[in-house]
Amino acid sequence: MKNRDERIKKIIIDEKRLFLEDRIPSEYKHDEYVTDTGSLYGVALPQNKEEIQQLVQFASSEKIPMIVQGAGTGLSGATAPQGGELVIDLHLMNQIVELDEDTMTLTVEPGVLLGEIHNYVEKRGYFYPPDPGSKHSSIGGNVATNAGGMRAVKYGVTRDYIRQLDVILPDGREMSLGSLNIKSSSGYDLKNLFIGSEGTLGVTTLIKLKLIPLPKEKRSIIVAFETLEHATDAVLTILRNGIDPTTMEFFEKEAIALSEKENQLDFPSQIGNAYLLITLDGDSRASIESRLHQLNGSVRQHHALEVLPLTDPKMEHTAWFLRDQLLTAVVNYTEQVTLDEVVPVPHVSELYHYTKELEKESGLKMISFGHAGDGNLHTCITRGDIQDEKEWQEKRDDVLDKLYGKIQELGGLPSAEHGIGIIKKKYFHKMTAPINIEIMQQIKKVFDPENLMNPNKVL
Amino acid sequence: MKNRDERIKKIIIDEKRLFLEDRIPSEYKHDEYVTDTGSLYGVALPQNKEEIQQLVQFASSEKIPMIVQGAGTGLSGATAPQGGELVIDLHLMNQIVELDEDTMTLTVEPGVLLGEIHNYVEKRGYFYPPDPGSKHSSIGGNVATNAGGMRAVKYGVTRDYIRQLDVILPDGREMSLGSLNIKSSSGYDLKNLFIGSEGTLGVTTLIKLKLIPLPKEKRSIIVAFETLEHATDAVLTILRNGIDPTTMEFFEKEAIALSEKENQLDFPSQIGNAYLLITLDGDSRASIESRLHQLNGSVRQHHALEVLPLTDPKMEHTAWFLRDQLLTAVVNYTEQVTLDEVVPVPHVSELYHYTKELEKESGLKMISFGHAGDGNLHTCITRGDIQDEKEWQEKRDDVLDKLYGKIQELGGLPSAEHGIGIIKKKYFHKMTAPINIEIMQQIKKVFDPENLMNPNKVL
Repeated sequence: MKNRDERIKKIIIDEKRLFLEDRIPSEYKHDEYVTDTGSLYGVALPQNKEEIQQLVQFASSEKIPMIVQGAGTGLSGATAPQGGELVIDLHLMNQIVELDEDTMTLTVEPGVLLGEIHNYVEKRGYFYPPDPGSKHSSIGGNVATNAGGMRAVKYGVTRDYIRQLDVILPDGREMSLGSLNIKSSSGYDLKNLFIGSEGTLGVTTLIKLKLIPLPKEKRSIIVAFETLEHATDAVLTILRNGIDPTTMEFFEKEAIALSEKENQLDFPSQIGNAYLLITLDGDSRASIESRLHQLNGSVRQHHALEVLPLTDPKMEHTAWFLRDQLLTAVVNYTEQVTLDEVVPVPHVSELYHYTKELEKESGLKMISFGHAGDGNLHTCITRGDIQDEKEWQEKRDDVLDKLYGKIQELGGLPSAEHGIGIIKKKYFHKMTAPINIEIMQQIKKVFDPENLMNPNKVL
Repeated sequence: MKNRDERIKKIIIDEKRLFLEDRIPSEYKHDEYVTDTGSLYGVALPQNKEEIQQLVQFASSEKIPMIVQGAGTGLSGATAPQGGELVIDLHLMNQIVELDEDTMTLTVEPGVLLGEIHNYVEKRGYFYPPDPGSKHSSIGGNVATNAGGMRAVKYGVTRDYIRQLDVILPDGREMSLGSLNIKSSSGYDLKNLFIGSEGTLGVTTLIKLKLIPLPKEKRSIIVAFETLEHATDAVLTILRNGIDPTTMEFFEKEAIALSEKENQLDFPSQIGNAYLLITLDGDSRASIESRLHQLNGSVRQHHALEVLPLTDPKMEHTAWFLRDQLLTAVVNYTEQVTLDEVVPVPHVSELYHYTKELEKESGLKMISFGHAGDGNLHTCITRGDIQDEKEWQEKRDDVLDKLYGKIQELGGLPSAEHGIGIIKKKYFHKMTAPINIEIMQQIKKVFDPENLMNPNKVL
């Protein structure tokens, strides 16, 4: 055992970048959601690809399981230790390497934060559309979870903006997936297999992102409805009419009310019980005006109470700030479990109603918001004033079983954008055909025959 | 042997849908490009999923290799027999099953032709953007090759429009890949692995396509240039300026001249030596006018000789007809090999120049056209008046070796949209890192451990 410690100390000589035994900082022993985790072998913070490769070769030869961590903002326990792992923390690999204006790509190391990427490219007239809630998440983590976010309805998810990934396999070999070519019919698509694999197939060392030109104009609009059905019906009409919204967030009045209270701010609309917060972007003001006109017609069909274009920048900022702070407000309000389920868009309304039934049945308050244009809800199951820990856990688990059952019945999936990790593994396996799980397990073995890369996660 | 014939005759009882031994029609023994093929065990034309499943189970238990065929329009020899195969011809599985306007998806059997899909959905106000050259290709074949086509520059390729695939694995088990959900972070992406796998992993039995609203307006424009460099430089500027063209085809004057001669029609522009044929589509005429204005500015920077909006429908039809007939014109002009290589967009010009060098060096005329916005060229190596077969083959193979070498040097790929099949296998293996080939081979084994599904193709 001493011997292996000596080996790793030769790879990462700097003591500030290697922590073994009781020197391991406590923040590595949990993630945002998972607190009761196993022990760790150690934590290493490589600064370049060569160090990553040597660490992986070391761990592989010593049969030490590995966990790759980015900014540590994961919500599914995918980086929570299970016992004896080496954490390879990539947050020092945080260089924006190159903006190539000819191929419209940005080359970044995996530890670069999403918000830095947005700022960097937008200053230069480009746009990286994926927009997950946490701007402090790392791009490597975004790739690992195929992160989604608010702008997916128009622009797609992380998967759609990855041109190339350089990775290290669990045995230490290097591999490049994808390329700067826009089209390919040249062999199996290994790049998409890696995206969303939650650190179970290898370590990403370099990422080439696809950029698009920054839209010249945008406008946010609040649409208020009496009921959430009216709002979700309107979503279908908006999508069919080619209005092409960039975002289409929905939330109940009582959800945004928590954020209003927490932040001491008023949401710009105070009418009705459900809202759509919509953005239109485009190449010209005329295009936005014409689509806004169509939007008006579409939502009026569905009994919209108010259509409020947010032309005042302060008002627009307030609306989005309150939306962005929604989850934080719920978290501060009470202990809760927040899901990231997805169903086909026409079933959003039915799923929402089912949460209201569960609320009555269980007595647990259910708060819903999410990305209506994608069918991606964030249902929060809240503890409220239940004092007894066991009672809360039993009720919560009963609600989770029923809710995931309903999601499956509606053709939905357990995770739209946060990943399966360790938290959703049970439901993922219940909701997925055994043959699909079997094939995934065999593919895991192709990349990682010794099961050393983030073992026990997802599969 | 008799025994196995009796078994398959019990699966496909109708004699008009099963051909064994000397009853096998000769058209199954070759494809568009490959003529010297091996023998076949037989040809079966299933009419439903159950028959496909029974055929696969039969072939699997008898260890008969299988080839799945669609409309037979493949250009890479992917469905050409290698010896002893059962061809499963899906062209009778040609039903459009359901248009679901709520999820904006179209469910089709794999044998439905691309042109039928375009007609069906456009009549109803929807749009299926992928637009490969052959409208007589089957959608199953489009999935198998991840077919691209003209509109990829704005809308992407087949991969981007597949929501769900139902497949039968080589051992006869059923599997469903993808779903009607728009987002997923729920396990490995098996759907994208199947797309573009050229019939080597299983048989697709049902496809759910993503549709989008049909754009309300469109306009085609010819831009003429003195040289192809000017044209390719203009392409980069157009892409960067957010003009968002739907198509951006380029061709040399001498290429379109072949089509003009063959079809006895004049191309609307007769100035210069290289053309871009561009389409703009959008939600309003104003949006198109404003982008056309920007387009004008962008191409003038690159010395455009003429910008010709094709407002006359007859003129527009002629331009596109001549473009669509380009390959046919080349084929009728002389024996040739047509590639579907792709390079990063900024390298198109360099690749084109290299073909002109090779032309001088080899004496073989090289004709180029393609999808400039994607970096996807169709270089045609033509035989011209070389009489001696051996001389032609040697010169052709020497040119191919050098050309694919250059494509690799430029970071390109052997196939953008036709697939590797059998024809490009040698170059694919030369141009791909051994570790990528190895991982692909192991993934093939996961799905097809007995190597019965289209063996010897791609890998």
